[in-house]
Amino acid sequence: MTREFVYFSSKATTSGGALSGNKGSVDLMKAGRMDIAIHSLISAFFLSHDIRKDVRMHLVFYGMPDPPKHIEIEYHKDLPLNKRDVANLLRKILYKYKPGVKNNPIPGCFIEKKSFLDILNELVKEGKEIYILDKNGEDIRETDFNESSTPVFILGDHEGLPKKEIKRLKDIANKVSIGPKMYFASQTIAIVNNELDRRGI
Amino acid sequence: MTREFVYFSSKATTSGGALSGNKGSVDLMKAGRMDIAIHSLISAFFLSHDIRKDVRMHLVFYGMPDPPKHIEIEYHKDLPLNKRDVANLLRKILYKYKPGVKNNPIPGCFIEKKSFLDILNELVKEGKEIYILDKNGEDIRETDFNESSTPVFILGDHEGLPKKEIKRLKDIANKVSIGPKMYFASQTIAIVNNELDRRGI
Repeated sequence: MTREFVYFSSKATTSGGALSGNKGSVDLMKAGRMDIAIHSLISAFFLSHDIRKDVRMHLVFYGMPDPPKHIEIEYHKDLPLNKRDVANLLRKILYKYKPGVKNNPIPGCFIEKKSFLDILNELVKEGKEIYILDKNGEDIRETDFNESSTPVFILGDHEGLPKKEIKRLKDIANKVSIGPKMYFASQTIAIVNNELDRRGI
Repeated sequence: MTREFVYFSSKATTSGGALSGNKGSVDLMKAGRMDIAIHSLISAFFLSHDIRKDVRMHLVFYGMPDPPKHIEIEYHKDLPLNKRDVANLLRKILYKYKPGVKNNPIPGCFIEKKSFLDILNELVKEGKEIYILDKNGEDIRETDFNESSTPVFILGDHEGLPKKEIKRLKDIANKVSIGPKMYFASQTIAIVNNELDRRGI
């Protein structure tokens, strides 16, 4: 089953410059916790010795200097596994932003200016089903995923999703729970991927 | 429920020197894929804005120059979350190895020379139950964990466990499966932790 993840961060940098620097010297934690975005991306796409072809990842960055940015990444054979290489990839994508278009500067990678709500409304229009991770939601193990649709899971960074955004999603997102604890975004993705893998759908 | 993880790596460095270097310049992937050990440790102990107090992690390193090394880490309030800081912690622990003793150089951290099999036999003697992750094992969701015992989960690095070691574990370890795919060690830990969290035991 194709699956999509939307990672929202209100602080992640919207400029390639913040991810530049001498090799290894960029502090990803200071670039709006870009480290969390990178771990999430790696967790979404990679298995032990394998890349998932059925994943699409949306990164929605609301940090300075030019929010919002929507980066969309789909499977590509050259997708990097290494944290530093993923940081470089994101830097390159951010540099290639062009006002007014959805730019595709690198195979499988897209960037545009689009708000979180507009992104989700577009996914709904495409017939996809939106799920938001919430401790009080329906147990994901009991959730009846529509096999002819694509599930989209929304995650936040360490600060979670802003209340304002959650409110806006009320009518389009289903609340789903993976358990009684609050996990890292990357751990959450691993658990969601595992559930869908087990369904084999 | 208290839970333990044993991470085995046949290549992970057994010297603090390989983890030294100018700030940020150590290539953890080259130190016997120390990056996998570190991600596993972080995934085992950390939740979003929380540390697990009920986890104990064993790192069993068989890389050069002085294998084997058994590093044991239990909860401590100063346990670092950041990858670079965990690398520093492991470096310090490795430097403090003392022949003939189980050294406790840092609160919550122990190091000794002990073989993989001896470590596991000791855990069995302590009444703990050993589980080895295996696609063909019993489904972890169906596994009947003994609430009065501590489950110990064995994981390998990207190369998995050597066949020789798996054979030796035959009589003491129960095979348990988390699903049809092969995950990273850190993803596997997230999924196992989630299962135990859900049980609330």
